[in-house]
Amino acid sequence: MNDSVRAGLSPAPEVFGGQWALADVVARLRVARMSWRKRQGRGREPGGRELPSREALAEIVHAVCGALFPMRLGPPDLREESEDFYVGHTLDSALNALLAQVKLELNYQVRHEARERPDLHQRAVHIVQDFAAALPGLRGLLDDDVMAAFHGDPAARSVDEVLLCYPGILAVLHHRLAHQLYQTGAPLLARMIAELAHAQTGIDIHPGARIGRGFFIDHGTGVVIGETAVIGERVRLYQAVTLGAKRFATTEDGSLEKGAPRHPIVEDDVVIYAGATVLGRITIGRGSSIGGNVWLTRSVPPGSHVTQANVQSEVRHD
Amino acid sequence: MNDSVRAGLSPAPEVFGGQWALADVVARLRVARMSWRKRQGRGREPGGRELPSREALAEIVHAVCGALFPMRLGPPDLREESEDFYVGHTLDSALNALLAQVKLELNYQVRHEARERPDLHQRAVHIVQDFAAALPGLRGLLDDDVMAAFHGDPAARSVDEVLLCYPGILAVLHHRLAHQLYQTGAPLLARMIAELAHAQTGIDIHPGARIGRGFFIDHGTGVVIGETAVIGERVRLYQAVTLGAKRFATTEDGSLEKGAPRHPIVEDDVVIYAGATVLGRITIGRGSSIGGNVWLTRSVPPGSHVTQANVQSEVRHD
Amino acid sequence: MNDSVRAGLSPAPEVFGGQWALADVVARLRVARMSWRKRQGRGREPGGRELPSREALAEIVHAVCGALFPMRLGPPDLREESEDFYVGHTLDSALNALLAQVKLELNYQVRHEARERPDLHQRAVHIVQDFAAALPGLRGLLDDDVMAAFHGDPAARSVDEVLLCYPGILAVLHHRLAHQLYQTGAPLLARMIAELAHAQTGIDIHPGARIGRGFFIDHGTGVVIGETAVIGERVRLYQAVTLGAKRFATTEDGSLEKGAPRHPIVEDDVVIYAGATVLGRITIGRGSSIGGNVWLTRSVPPGSHVTQANVQSEVRHD
Amino acid sequence: MNDSVRAGLSPAPEVFGGQWALADVVARLRVARMSWRKRQGRGREPGGRELPSREALAEIVHAVCGALFPMRLGPPDLREESEDFYVGHTLDSALNALLAQVKLELNYQVRHEARERPDLHQRAVHIVQDFAAALPGLRGLLDDDVMAAFHGDPAARSVDEVLLCYPGILAVLHHRLAHQLYQTGAPLLARMIAELAHAQTGIDIHPGARIGRGFFIDHGTGVVIGETAVIGERVRLYQAVTLGAKRFATTEDGSLEKGAPRHPIVEDDVVIYAGATVLGRITIGRGSSIGGNVWLTRSVPPGSHVTQANVQSEVRHD
Amino acid sequence: MNDSVRAGLSPAPEVFGGQWALADVVARLRVARMSWRKRQGRGREPGGRELPSREALAEIVHAVCGALFPMRLGPPDLREESEDFYVGHTLDSALNALLAQVKLELNYQVRHEARERPDLHQRAVHIVQDFAAALPGLRGLLDDDVMAAFHGDPAARSVDEVLLCYPGILAVLHHRLAHQLYQTGAPLLARMIAELAHAQTGIDIHPGARIGRGFFIDHGTGVVIGETAVIGERVRLYQAVTLGAKRFATTEDGSLEKGAPRHPIVEDDVVIYAGATVLGRITIGRGSSIGGNVWLTRSVPPGSHVTQANVQSEVRHD
Amino acid sequence: MNDSVRAGLSPAPEVFGGQWALADVVARLRVARMSWRKRQGRGREPGGRELPSREALAEIVHAVCGALFPMRLGPPDLREESEDFYVGHTLDSALNALLAQVKLELNYQVRHEARERPDLHQRAVHIVQDFAAALPGLRGLLDDDVMAAFHGDPAARSVDEVLLCYPGILAVLHHRLAHQLYQTGAPLLARMIAELAHAQTGIDIHPGARIGRGFFIDHGTGVVIGETAVIGERVRLYQAVTLGAKRFATTEDGSLEKGAPRHPIVEDDVVIYAGATVLGRITIGRGSSIGGNVWLTRSVPPGSHVTQANVQSEVRHD
Repeated sequence: MNDSVRAGLSPAPEVFGGQWALADVVARLRVARMSWRKRQGRGREPGGRELPSREALAEIVHAVCGALFPMRLGPPDLREESEDFYVGHTLDSALNALLAQVKLELNYQVRHEARERPDLHQRAVHIVQDFAAALPGLRGLLDDDVMAAFHGDPAARSVDEVLLCYPGILAVLHHRLAHQLYQTGAPLLARMIAELAHAQTGIDIHPGARIGRGFFIDHGTGVVIGETAVIGERVRLYQAVTLGAKRFATTEDGSLEKGAPRHPIVEDDVVIYAGATVLGRITIGRGSSIGGNVWLTRSVPPGSHVTQANVQSEVRHD
Repeated sequence: MNDSVRAGLSPAPEVFGGQWALADVVARLRVARMSWRKRQGRGREPGGRELPSREALAEIVHAVCGALFPMRLGPPDLREESEDFYVGHTLDSALNALLAQVKLELNYQVRHEARERPDLHQRAVHIVQDFAAALPGLRGLLDDDVMAAFHGDPAARSVDEVLLCYPGILAVLHHRLAHQLYQTGAPLLARMIAELAHAQTGIDIHPGARIGRGFFIDHGTGVVIGETAVIGERVRLYQAVTLGAKRFATTEDGSLEKGAPRHPIVEDDVVIYAGATVLGRITIGRGSSIGGNVWLTRSVPPGSHVTQANVQSEVRHD
Repeated sequence: MNDSVRAGLSPAPEVFGGQWALADVVARLRVARMSWRKRQGRGREPGGRELPSREALAEIVHAVCGALFPMRLGPPDLREESEDFYVGHTLDSALNALLAQVKLELNYQVRHEARERPDLHQRAVHIVQDFAAALPGLRGLLDDDVMAAFHGDPAARSVDEVLLCYPGILAVLHHRLAHQLYQTGAPLLARMIAELAHAQTGIDIHPGARIGRGFFIDHGTGVVIGETAVIGERVRLYQAVTLGAKRFATTEDGSLEKGAPRHPIVEDDVVIYAGATVLGRITIGRGSSIGGNVWLTRSVPPGSHVTQANVQSEVRHD
Repeated sequence: MNDSVRAGLSPAPEVFGGQWALADVVARLRVARMSWRKRQGRGREPGGRELPSREALAEIVHAVCGALFPMRLGPPDLREESEDFYVGHTLDSALNALLAQVKLELNYQVRHEARERPDLHQRAVHIVQDFAAALPGLRGLLDDDVMAAFHGDPAARSVDEVLLCYPGILAVLHHRLAHQLYQTGAPLLARMIAELAHAQTGIDIHPGARIGRGFFIDHGTGVVIGETAVIGERVRLYQAVTLGAKRFATTEDGSLEKGAPRHPIVEDDVVIYAGATVLGRITIGRGSSIGGNVWLTRSVPPGSHVTQANVQSEVRHD
Repeated sequence: MNDSVRAGLSPAPEVFGGQWALADVVARLRVARMSWRKRQGRGREPGGRELPSREALAEIVHAVCGALFPMRLGPPDLREESEDFYVGHTLDSALNALLAQVKLELNYQVRHEARERPDLHQRAVHIVQDFAAALPGLRGLLDDDVMAAFHGDPAARSVDEVLLCYPGILAVLHHRLAHQLYQTGAPLLARMIAELAHAQTGIDIHPGARIGRGFFIDHGTGVVIGETAVIGERVRLYQAVTLGAKRFATTEDGSLEKGAPRHPIVEDDVVIYAGATVLGRITIGRGSSIGGNVWLTRSVPPGSHVTQANVQSEVRHD
Repeated sequence: MNDSVRAGLSPAPEVFGGQWALADVVARLRVARMSWRKRQGRGREPGGRELPSREALAEIVHAVCGALFPMRLGPPDLREESEDFYVGHTLDSALNALLAQVKLELNYQVRHEARERPDLHQRAVHIVQDFAAALPGLRGLLDDDVMAAFHGDPAARSVDEVLLCYPGILAVLHHRLAHQLYQTGAPLLARMIAELAHAQTGIDIHPGARIGRGFFIDHGTGVVIGETAVIGERVRLYQAVTLGAKRFATTEDGSLEKGAPRHPIVEDDVVIYAGATVLGRITIGRGSSIGGNVWLTRSVPPGSHVTQANVQSEVRHD
């Protein structure tokens, strides 16, 4: 460690002799941070931490879920008399907290772009207002998702079991909230909400994906749905289905191409069974079914039934 | 929003001008709830929330785990002198809390069926009594599961590492508790416990599955075991194994068939390697091994070794 | 239950009549514990619980993450003026807490081996000192991992989004901390940290695996990397990739072989796409790419492009 | 310890040798409990704990305070748009929690009196309904108390400082809630609420005391107001004032007389300065002032100014 | 309840029939609030809650105490190596939190005065900067207070016992922090801090009081020290001592006079014993002692020893 | 601040410019600490914080109270079946925690005395063992205290109300626990426990005081009982009673005399009314009563009734 480092916050020599050599580790960590910030073209950071908080978002989503489904995801002592009070108070807290997170993201976007930030507060308010106004509509969509799960799984005993237990519902609930924020200008928060669901369920839906009514994912672990995927109404997926991009696509200068449509379009009433891999900007026509473990990289017309060909197992006996 | 909606809890006009238009959002959410309840054939809900709580169940399972394995999953300051006191007190709290949850589920079942509920409290007590009485036997089963994991994984260093670290053990532990509740009349609680494990481990075992002694799942992410699966003794699974139903099976009127046996029977001493998919009410004979990624939809006799046929990769070089 | 059991902590007869028959359940659970301890060749346990705590480790890792990336994973009110104070104080608490956990593991190792424990405290201090001293270097490695993720994913908008959101980064962060402890003599803690990440991300990296700079796992759910795997620099993996051992390998006496190199070597600049399975001590040469779902059990030279052969799907129409 | 004790829950002999001799202490504590219950004429206690909880009451009072003064004692993020939602939701939770505590008290009363308990739930509901209905009126009373404090203390800067800071206000707030419960049949809860304020402020007002509008206690530590005291409007007290009973009053059989009026009547517009002691069922006439440290055991007519007579200090010099 | 009330947030008729008549109670509470705000000359409150929080201040004071006395009031795992890191990080958090509270108070002051608020943020920063800069000096003062307590109480065994246990020290510690804020323009926060100590100790020191070095209060319950009191160095008080204002002083228009010096001046090295009452702007000369229960309303010269005259008790025997 | 200070942990110049000048404040606080440690004759502190924790003691006392009175101060869900389990487990945790605190105190005592500490752990174990063994006896004493309160207060409705509500009982409960520790060698912990009660109740009983059976303090605020006071059986005190030392007693060299008997002896069946002050090593004979506000500094024989003489008030009328 050279002198310029120690010039930072250098402890007296004897303090270096502490059990953990804390002062030394702290100084070297500072060097590492400075090196990173330099590589990123960042100067001193005059303000404080400017990134949204995963924990704050988790609480916001939890509160919004309670407000959407008060009798099922709200507090245990709720009764109909107090439902609206609970919903109103909970939403208010959640929206205020969301406003703070949106402002953090907008500030971050602006810092990155090195532009002025004149109307930032107002933009954040608009995003949250849109979010609030969208909630009743989202509730309706989610009711259809629950019905789809109930009808789609022979093991489901009631619509309430579906809402309480099914990871697929949890993932869609997060997605619909995240997609709303993604569309209105808070893609980082949207991504963080998507990852909250991913961590809980193993279902990885990019918040950019557009998903129609009555969507159901059963079991779900390992499902991946890409940013530009488009999914119609009444679509059903099983575990480990990938709606991904074809890889190796690069721009002329060799770097990966960003932003362009590169994930599948899945039309209405399609079922895709476990482990199927669907790659690229292809279209799966309305009403098709894609069998388990199928590997599909080209479009199929409506009403197709795609299964693995040549699947054989070899059986030996001792 | 029409007038009849506003008749609900309509704020004064000026309050509508608030930052989040809360009163309006609350009113529209109420409309959405009412619409859902009407679709579900439900009238006013005079009582309060009647569904069990995921958080409460998580605490109950945590406490029961401590009571089952006090020196390894119990509190850090436990010593042998105080073991029984800890176990007794912890169980008592957990069983009382479980009783409350069981009553919620029974109430819910009854409401749904629109029947009388004369002896409901007593039925709940019986379910919890059976649960308590089953715990010593479950502890013995779990000890065998731990031994199976220890012997089945070359990376395992000790039986205690297995209990503390292995997601497969966590999943089986939850399953054996959940299955007990499933059998004695609390299938919703059972499902919720199963999903607690699913969220932690990526292993999705339906609580209805019947699983014999010495069961081990290694790595585990993506494993799915269906409701009517039957698994013998000393069976070993790896990640992403599916013991599922063959799809497309519907009843005459076109809806999915519910309840019938539709998942595999796996006999004693079978090993199923990662990614294998076993579908339908088939039987895998005792002592068989199913290779990685195998797709299997018909029964195999005891002692079979099933592997993928025709698996080839194409290697190009630049 | 026989008399010798009741001799333990037998309640008066009338207490047996309690609602949960607690005294009886407690006594039978004690019998089950005694039986297990006997099978494990353990006598009475004079001391208390001696195993590390998952919750304690989770807090330690959380604190270390904050100390490594204070402005992004630290507290919301942090500013540059207070960064070093935060880092120093947080590290100190985390290292002291880690010391306690390391001592628990060392005690456990020694008990198991029935050897003396003369210098145990000092060994624990050394392990933690090494851990502390390694942190600045790990920060540098992780910065490269973040850059690799940013460059490797078309959907990534900023390096900070990557650090905050990507489960692959979370998994690698845990792995690099765990691997440090694995190398210096705390393999149980290492494993527990790895499982913390596994539970969050569905990515299962054994702490023994050696992984080079600029490592990136996209989506990640279902990835398994075995204990003796060796991964070079700038390697990229997708979800559900397995770097595993070939199974059926046993020692002469029929038990599974432990400890020997049995997982793949992946050289620099390799990409392995989703669902690929790579098994055994084979080598994937530098710069190769392994396609989705490929099943690979033999080495390939540098620059290979491996894809599934004969992959066909059968398309039917109604 | 004799055999009959050990017959309770006697541990095996070797367990007695534990570090804390826990089993022995537990057994002796049980003997002590049994002895007490016998002295109290109580048999076995078949149910569980039947007494209200101080912690639960503290939370209820905290919530009710927030509902009464949402902008000053409510949550920091409250705005006028959401005030009613907050008030309604908070009240609902608090009233439900209060209902549970009232039922505990009623059960306890009934057990003590060994009577039937047919309509107990309904009585509890009525008590809580009365409490809820009384709140708006109590808010008005408390506003007057705040104004009285503001006008009565030269150091007061604003009415809001008074509400936030003055222990006298805190005590009166608790008293007015407690008195409501005292009047409607929950004297134990009332007493517990009074003691919450006593612990915070050093002001001990029995919930039975009747206190008029515009009441102010300055500083307050050491104030004692007895059960049957009656206080008019606009009365002001300072620290260490006692409105107590004359002692030595006993019934014919020598035991202390219970329940009869035995504390002072203080008419409107009286001021009582610090340390004054007013004892017995006397009347302090309207508009009187009682000086510091005065000892008063007989009634005084309206407009009296009572001071210590013969108060002299002796001053020596070195 | 008239129509104009219901125009607020009137629920549908049937909701009025709920168990707690919540909608009705909420509406009537709103009427009570509106009535209060009208009496206070306040209009609609467009913003949110603007008052500081007692809980937030309690945490700030707790943190500052730790930073002042890290080895005695700081965290248990602190070692000398990490002392400065802890102090710096803790201070930073506490000062940031204090800044938020100071801004709330300044906003409140300004609203009250209906003036502009141009430089409010900067004024708040200055107040907190002054507070931070004063801390080292306050630590020195407090060390002297601790020494005074140690030397003044025969029961004190060590200086550390004094710091940890003595309510008098707790009160002085709070006072010295509160007085700093009182002097620099945050009198409401100052008062709230004083009341935190009052609630803990029964010692009521107005934050405006000026108190010299080496101040000690023994036992302390019931001590009251007024806003304009001035206390010299090495003064010692016992429980229930009042340094108060003479009452009945009013301005010409009959209201109580505010702000003028009205409490005693106590010169250096004075001792005042338990229960003594000292009233008015009098001076107790240097080195005097005031005996227990003395009532003093005129100045005494240096070196006076004041005791109760004519104190006699009457002893009867049965 | 001179250079030698900055040599400590001196930040780079630009960091001094931070908003709070943190580095500077931290450095000056270190100087203040060093100055104090030097004045106290202390060198560097190689270990960590060695003082017991108030919070830890509060939890221990809370747990012990629950173990002593499980059905009244224990958890709400306790039933007779689980009483002993709760008591045993709770005691075990509390005793282990107490052991840690006792070790801190013993270490502190030894450091102060600069002696060796060979058997310190064993001494701590003995103190806790004695504490545990004393608990059943203390429960019996406390039952008598509760009965005394019930019989002594006309407002008491049941023995359980007394235990739950009366601050006098809370104070005696803490005292009896504290006195046990005081006697067996942990006077600092004893004092801290006494101050926990003092803060809650305003009753300040030094843990050294010896107090007989059936003791009752009514209201209690302001009571002070000194270290060497001796109180017989069935004694009753009211608020603001002082059993103190006569002041001005000093040793020959002018410092205050420590440790000698200096507080009153109160024999059996004495009643002391509110505000009475009893000072010095005098004896109040059995069965005496001391009236309110009496000032007593000489012994009185058994059966005395002491009242204020010459108490007159002057009454003026407007």
